[in-house]
Amino acid sequence: MEKDRPALPITYHHIEPQTGTAFTVEQDQHIRVIDVEGEQVADLTCFARCNRDEYLSSGRTIDYNEKIYLTTGDRLYSNLSNPMLTIVDDPVGKHDFLFAPCSREMFHRTYGITGPHPNCLDNLAASLAAYDIHAAQIFTVFNIFMNTSISENGAVTVRPPLSRAGDYIELQARIDLIIGLTACSAGKCNNFRCTAIDVEVW
Amino acid sequence: MEKDRPALPITYHHIEPQTGTAFTVEQDQHIRVIDVEGEQVADLTCFARCNRDEYLSSGRTIDYNEKIYLTTGDRLYSNLSNPMLTIVDDPVGKHDFLFAPCSREMFHRTYGITGPHPNCLDNLAASLAAYDIHAAQIFTVFNIFMNTSISENGAVTVRPPLSRAGDYIELQARIDLIIGLTACSAGKCNNFRCTAIDVEVW
Repeated sequence: MEKDRPALPITYHHIEPQTGTAFTVEQDQHIRVIDVEGEQVADLTCFARCNRDEYLSSGRTIDYNEKIYLTTGDRLYSNLSNPMLTIVDDPVGKHDFLFAPCSREMFHRTYGITGPHPNCLDNLAASLAAYDIHAAQIFTVFNIFMNTSISENGAVTVRPPLSRAGDYIELQARIDLIIGLTACSAGKCNNFRCTAIDVEVW
Repeated sequence: MEKDRPALPITYHHIEPQTGTAFTVEQDQHIRVIDVEGEQVADLTCFARCNRDEYLSSGRTIDYNEKIYLTTGDRLYSNLSNPMLTIVDDPVGKHDFLFAPCSREMFHRTYGITGPHPNCLDNLAASLAAYDIHAAQIFTVFNIFMNTSISENGAVTVRPPLSRAGDYIELQARIDLIIGLTACSAGKCNNFRCTAIDVEVW
C-alpha cells in the first residue's frame, strides 16, 4: 500500500490524549490511524454521510467476516449490510470489536471514579454533534489497537496493545462517511498511559 | 427458581415461527422464554420504559461480565451501564451476544434470497413501532439459544442450538422495560427448521 500513498496527505488530524474528533471522508479515500507513542487505543465509529441511520455494526461485521479479530482485507459493515471500510494495511493485526466506548458510567463502575473523567463516549458524542449525531447513536465501536483476548470458555481479558510508536492501521472508505475517532481515555486499555493519535486522510 | 413461580403466569405470549412481539414488563418481573419444539433461537432486545435512549448493550454487558457467554447470575446491562435484566435460571447455558438480528439484507447476502423473507430485524421493528422505537435503534441483540462458538484465533462458527423442546431461559427485569422478542427466521441458527417461542411473564 505504501506505493499508493502520496508524499503529502490531503488532511491531517492530531488527537490529543483523552480527546476525540470527527471528520468526513469520501468514498475510496484512505484513512491512516497512527499510534504516536505506542500502546494507545483509538475508538472509531462511522455513519453514512447520506443517512445517519446507517452506521458501523459490530454484529454484521462479525457475521459476514465469520470472525471477531479483523485485519488486512477484512471489511467493516453497516447495520444495512453495506461495506463502510476495508482494512487495507494492518501491521499490528490486533483490534477489538466487542466493547462499547468507555463512558462516565464505566469509569464509575470499573475504576470507582465518581467525578468527571475524560471518556471516549463523551468525546465521540461531542465531536459528532456537529453532524447531528448524539450519544445514544454510538454503540459498539471498532477499538483500534485494543488487545482483547477470549478464552475457549468465553472469558474476555484486556491486555496492553501490541502497537509500538509509529504503528498504524490503514482503512479505505467504501462510501462517503462521517467518522468519529478518539485517543482512548481508559487506563487498562492503554497500559495505564494515555497518549495521542494521529490521522492522515488522502 | 421453580418454587417462586406461580401456578398461573400473569401474561403469556405465543410467538409464531418467523414472527416477533413486543411487550412491557415491570421491575422485578420474571420473563421465561421457552423453546417450544427445540433448537429455536429467540432474539431479545430491550429499552428502558422511561427513556428510549437507554437500551440493551452487548458492549457494556461483555465488558462488565468479562465474558461473552452469559448464563445464570449474569446481568445484562444498558448503554448507560445500568443492569436491565438478570439471568436467573438457564438450564441450556449457551446464547449469543455478538450477532445483529437477521435482516432482509442479511438474507440477500448470506442466503442469496433477493425477495422478501421474514427476518428478526423487521419483526422487532414492526413490534417495537408501537413504542416509538424504529429499526435503526436495534443493534446487537441477545440471541437466546443461539449457539455461537469462537476459536482461539477468533473464528466464529454458528452451530445448532443446544435447546430441546420445552427448554427455557428465565430473566428478571431490573427496571421497567420494553422488550422486543422474536422466534428467529434464519435457517442456519435454528438447524434449518424455524419453530415457535412461548413467553411467560409473572
